[in-house]
Amino acid sequence: MTTSFPMNAGDVPYSYSKNSHLQREVLDGAKEMMKEVIIEHLDIKNMLSSSNKFYIIDLGCSIGPNTFNSMQHVVQVVKDKYHDNILEFQVFFNDHVNNDFNTLFRSLPVDRSYYASGVPGSFHGRLFPSRSIHVAHCSSAIHWLSKTPKELLDEKSSSWNKGLINYIGASNIEVMNAYVAQFEKDMEMFFNARAEEIVPGGMMVLISPQLSEHLLKFFGSSLLDLVNEGKLDESLVNSFNVPVYFPSIEDMTKVVEKNDCFSIERVELTHPKSKLVDEADAKTLMINLRAVLEGLFINHFGSKIAKEAFTRTILKSDEVSAWMKINYKKACQLFIALKRK
Amino acid sequence: MTTSFPMNAGDVPYSYSKNSHLQREVLDGAKEMMKEVIIEHLDIKNMLSSSNKFYIIDLGCSIGPNTFNSMQHVVQVVKDKYHDNILEFQVFFNDHVNNDFNTLFRSLPVDRSYYASGVPGSFHGRLFPSRSIHVAHCSSAIHWLSKTPKELLDEKSSSWNKGLINYIGASNIEVMNAYVAQFEKDMEMFFNARAEEIVPGGMMVLISPQLSEHLLKFFGSSLLDLVNEGKLDESLVNSFNVPVYFPSIEDMTKVVEKNDCFSIERVELTHPKSKLVDEADAKTLMINLRAVLEGLFINHFGSKIAKEAFTRTILKSDEVSAWMKINYKKACQLFIALKRK
Repeated sequence: MTTSFPMNAGDVPYSYSKNSHLQREVLDGAKEMMKEVIIEHLDIKNMLSSSNKFYIIDLGCSIGPNTFNSMQHVVQVVKDKYHDNILEFQVFFNDHVNNDFNTLFRSLPVDRSYYASGVPGSFHGRLFPSRSIHVAHCSSAIHWLSKTPKELLDEKSSSWNKGLINYIGASNIEVMNAYVAQFEKDMEMFFNARAEEIVPGGMMVLISPQLSEHLLKFFGSSLLDLVNEGKLDESLVNSFNVPVYFPSIEDMTKVVEKNDCFSIERVELTHPKSKLVDEADAKTLMINLRAVLEGLFINHFGSKIAKEAFTRTILKSDEVSAWMKINYKKACQLFIALKRK
Repeated sequence: MTTSFPMNAGDVPYSYSKNSHLQREVLDGAKEMMKEVIIEHLDIKNMLSSSNKFYIIDLGCSIGPNTFNSMQHVVQVVKDKYHDNILEFQVFFNDHVNNDFNTLFRSLPVDRSYYASGVPGSFHGRLFPSRSIHVAHCSSAIHWLSKTPKELLDEKSSSWNKGLINYIGASNIEVMNAYVAQFEKDMEMFFNARAEEIVPGGMMVLISPQLSEHLLKFFGSSLLDLVNEGKLDESLVNSFNVPVYFPSIEDMTKVVEKNDCFSIERVELTHPKSKLVDEADAKTLMINLRAVLEGLFINHFGSKIAKEAFTRTILKSDEVSAWMKINYKKACQLFIALKRK
């Protein structure tokens, strides 16, 4: 029942591996915080007892290079903290089964200091045996909902989201409510699964960018332009909503507390020191989003309309750039560090 | 320094997934023996202590469906033996990094009773942290050498294997010796790695078919036909040897004893009750081998010559069939069950 649309595969011009700078900025901004929470809150002596095996997952890893960068960082921080300990690390790279694991595996760094493994499947369900993971990491991924709430596409529903492709800009509060309800359902499954899989004392760090949601509206407006020019049927736009919801601190706190298996060790919204955002390089950002969204658009609109919509949106760089300068403060990211009780 | 040539990818007509009946027959023949050795020799109560996580690897798994079949069998046998125990299984599917893991993952059985994971890398090296695996399984894979011994291709060497593509049929004993030496080197690395990875009391089962080696000579003779017709340069045949060595019981016993970390619980040569061999369906067998060998042939000879050699060999089905009826007793397989001391 869940849908999934992987990032663009391979390493061709519009592939995710060549266009994940934005996600990289998010990670770089979180690295120092990641280091601090591991140093302050991770207690491996209790967690591992007599074993020296340390298991890490990256949930929603896509195809690199970002995932390699952040996994090596986690390994290094844990090694530095326990310099007297002979730990052996196994990293599990997780993403949907239609993720391009071949590209992921073939680009694994040769100088990595961990054993590598791929785990296909939705992180909204179980992926591992009970109590088998010590650190879970998830960056730029929890905002992907398991599906689009169907009432958004139903003209008879009070949540019908006519003419828009996301909750951003929707004046009807029922639209936002439908997104939030789906997010809460998904997170309930997510936390139930992780609560089983992560050992007591184990940690989970979730990082979520808050910029992309606002940029989505530019893709939506390109689709509406095509409708106005008679090139696209409006009903096709009305039957399409991008299944992403970017949670606030309050949203995250609520789902963590409802699950009740994790303590919140740190939560904050930060402004990444992003060169991309500083320079308001709108074109780079939009190409970046194309790598993320293209599969979803092609699946619904076909490749001709999808290509047209992306080309037009990238031509709006000046407009996007102007919007970004004013809304710079929205370019924040959510960082939350949790510990299994 | 190691070379690897994956089975043909995808599920197209000459793919491995559509042409692995022979390997399937090997596995079916071994299933009963696998069951017996687990029931007689595996003691999970000591091995797992307080944990209920059971980790299994399939080494050189290729892309299914055989690997799913044998992994489910191992899980089921262990479950049946410890019916009062709530075990959770994680299966690691291992093969070279250029194996088609995307196809493997997308064809995972939905009703599997284990958590699935892919591990890219050569099984001649380390793949897992120390003491993290309970059962290792390896079928139709250990006969692949990490590389072709280069003296076989060197006309100045006493091991030069002129006009042949394997040790089968070679009158020069030095050729066989070079193959055996490489096999022993590879197995030394293989057993050193597994001795670290497998927990004390953990088991490893190796299954190796003994028929394919004899069929290789038919592919070699097709190449020589092309040389005699002036369509292929003889030096190209002389610079090509298929890096497979099919060990005898004595070969296996020697490498296991040299490593000294495993006890031999059972070893035997058996004749699989193979319908394929019974009916002497030579054509099916040759198509089967094509799926296994095509990557290797194309890499050396180019796709035109490789295709021509395969087409010609499959046309020799009558000759192959006649040979098989006489040599039926050679269609045996080696089964060896080991326990980590």
